[in-house]
Amino acid sequence: MSALPGLTDVEAAAERVRGVVRETPLLESDALNALVGGRLLCKAECLQRTGSFKLRGAYNTISQLEGQPVVAFSSGNHAQGVAAAAKLLGVPATIVMPADAPAIKIANTRALGANIRLYDREREVREEIGAEIAERTGAALVKPYDDPRIIAGQGTAGLEAAQQLRAEGTAVDAALLPCGGGGLIAGCSIALAAAFPEAAILAVEPEGFDDTARSLAAGERLANAPGAKSFCDALLAPMPGELTFALHLRHLAGGLAVSDAEVARAMALAFSHLKVVVEPGGATALAAVLSGRFDARGRTVLVMLSGGNVDPALFAEVLQA
Amino acid sequence: MSALPGLTDVEAAAERVRGVVRETPLLESDALNALVGGRLLCKAECLQRTGSFKLRGAYNTISQLEGQPVVAFSSGNHAQGVAAAAKLLGVPATIVMPADAPAIKIANTRALGANIRLYDREREVREEIGAEIAERTGAALVKPYDDPRIIAGQGTAGLEAAQQLRAEGTAVDAALLPCGGGGLIAGCSIALAAAFPEAAILAVEPEGFDDTARSLAAGERLANAPGAKSFCDALLAPMPGELTFALHLRHLAGGLAVSDAEVARAMALAFSHLKVVVEPGGATALAAVLSGRFDARGRTVLVMLSGGNVDPALFAEVLQA
Repeated sequence: MSALPGLTDVEAAAERVRGVVRETPLLESDALNALVGGRLLCKAECLQRTGSFKLRGAYNTISQLEGQPVVAFSSGNHAQGVAAAAKLLGVPATIVMPADAPAIKIANTRALGANIRLYDREREVREEIGAEIAERTGAALVKPYDDPRIIAGQGTAGLEAAQQLRAEGTAVDAALLPCGGGGLIAGCSIALAAAFPEAAILAVEPEGFDDTARSLAAGERLANAPGAKSFCDALLAPMPGELTFALHLRHLAGGLAVSDAEVARAMALAFSHLKVVVEPGGATALAAVLSGRFDARGRTVLVMLSGGNVDPALFAEVLQA
Repeated sequence: MSALPGLTDVEAAAERVRGVVRETPLLESDALNALVGGRLLCKAECLQRTGSFKLRGAYNTISQLEGQPVVAFSSGNHAQGVAAAAKLLGVPATIVMPADAPAIKIANTRALGANIRLYDREREVREEIGAEIAERTGAALVKPYDDPRIIAGQGTAGLEAAQQLRAEGTAVDAALLPCGGGGLIAGCSIALAAAFPEAAILAVEPEGFDDTARSLAAGERLANAPGAKSFCDALLAPMPGELTFALHLRHLAGGLAVSDAEVARAMALAFSHLKVVVEPGGATALAAVLSGRFDARGRTVLVMLSGGNVDPALFAEVLQA
């Protein structure tokens, strides 16, 4: 197992991504504060370049590869993060995507200059395709979460939030973050635990994909049961990563699960009161607070809005529900 | 006629609103830049408290009234700006709204603690109602745009943008802003003309409501022809204000008009690439650039996104068009 990243790694990552990654605002709404009876400070990574935090980890990783081409498996935000980072650094990127991925995601990733290798989910194994590409092109595989450089890069979102909170003299009682494979919350927890040692840091997952919550409760990595469904497409990793889970054991107070209906309501309230577009997987932490599953009464809570890449048709459906 | 506000008035307003008004980000999208062949820096006042820039002018004005109650006529963003500013300053506010205003706007304004006086558009004259309220309660009328304190307050959005641009070493070739009565662009033009003397500052209005563009071309204030329709409900003022137009003559290079279809497309592109919610009237300047009515090729352009208060049903319709 690789060494776990620490605060100096997150700080070094922040230096690497400076000027490339955007400083995203902490948004606050008087109406949402009144709704929960506390204070919510929402870190709007949906406003990040490429529409999610994923650029942070991808850029931190690829900028350390000294010009080596890269390959990644993803049909989502990681694909766009890797493609954008590779383009910015002038290295070739190949993204391996299922042939049945939404056309818009394929088009967006191609527009960022990446080579797309489509594969048939039924008849091909993406790891074999990746190994073949790596051998043929000398490309390095950029993992989605279980890599110390990825974790440190995603952690720059938490470091930035901690700096913004300190600049305005605010301490938080809790920090809630969406969690799939756990790269974002593992990295951010390093910076947040250092800045706010008393704060409870909590992972928020979709119902049926609460592997992190159950793994934390059990003290060991557990997988999700097969067959679950959620529209939080960014958060469907099968189980916590090795590195991410080791960091979770150090820093997290636990995990919560939210339903798709609670997530949809959070997206609609973010539309009405924060005026930002949040994708389902990006809205789980907000959903935990607005649904009352996490009781924010009398508390100051950092809420991560991790991405905003959602199809217009789905967003329209959420607004009309 | 009152004295026209100048840069020192905008700077004084910025001191008054500090800590109350949010510093809104300048958003940028690689995809939108590629689309226009230039660089767009979008000042996201849709992320402002109350969902529009109107809080700036209202707070600047009411904070100088020494506790006097206030009254305003508006069914839109000005109503919410005045109600929120009055609440923050602890003074009573009465908002006079047509009884057929959308229920959501009435509810939002009431939620901000204002007294709502509904009137019948057919049978009552709102100015008479306002005069009666002013006499009975000693309230001061907070005008929507033609007041030097309002103009200076709205100008703090432009001052803030100029400071953000300078901090990153960026000069702009042009600045495009939505324009209704003209308070926002008149105020912002004071700060922008001082910071970027070579930049062309342009008002962007809905088709059929291009009174400012035509007035600038004619050198005198002209009204809109009756009967025009637009879904840009925030920008339907009948003609430029006296004070705002005097500032326009000093600072503006001219005006442009955009169609509702162009505005709707700009709202959809802001959703997809900036991940923000922009209301129709807030998206006219972006529409001018994205439609090619303003040629941004090879230019760096400041685009004001002035508000994000749009009904979910209308926004869903825009996304599905």
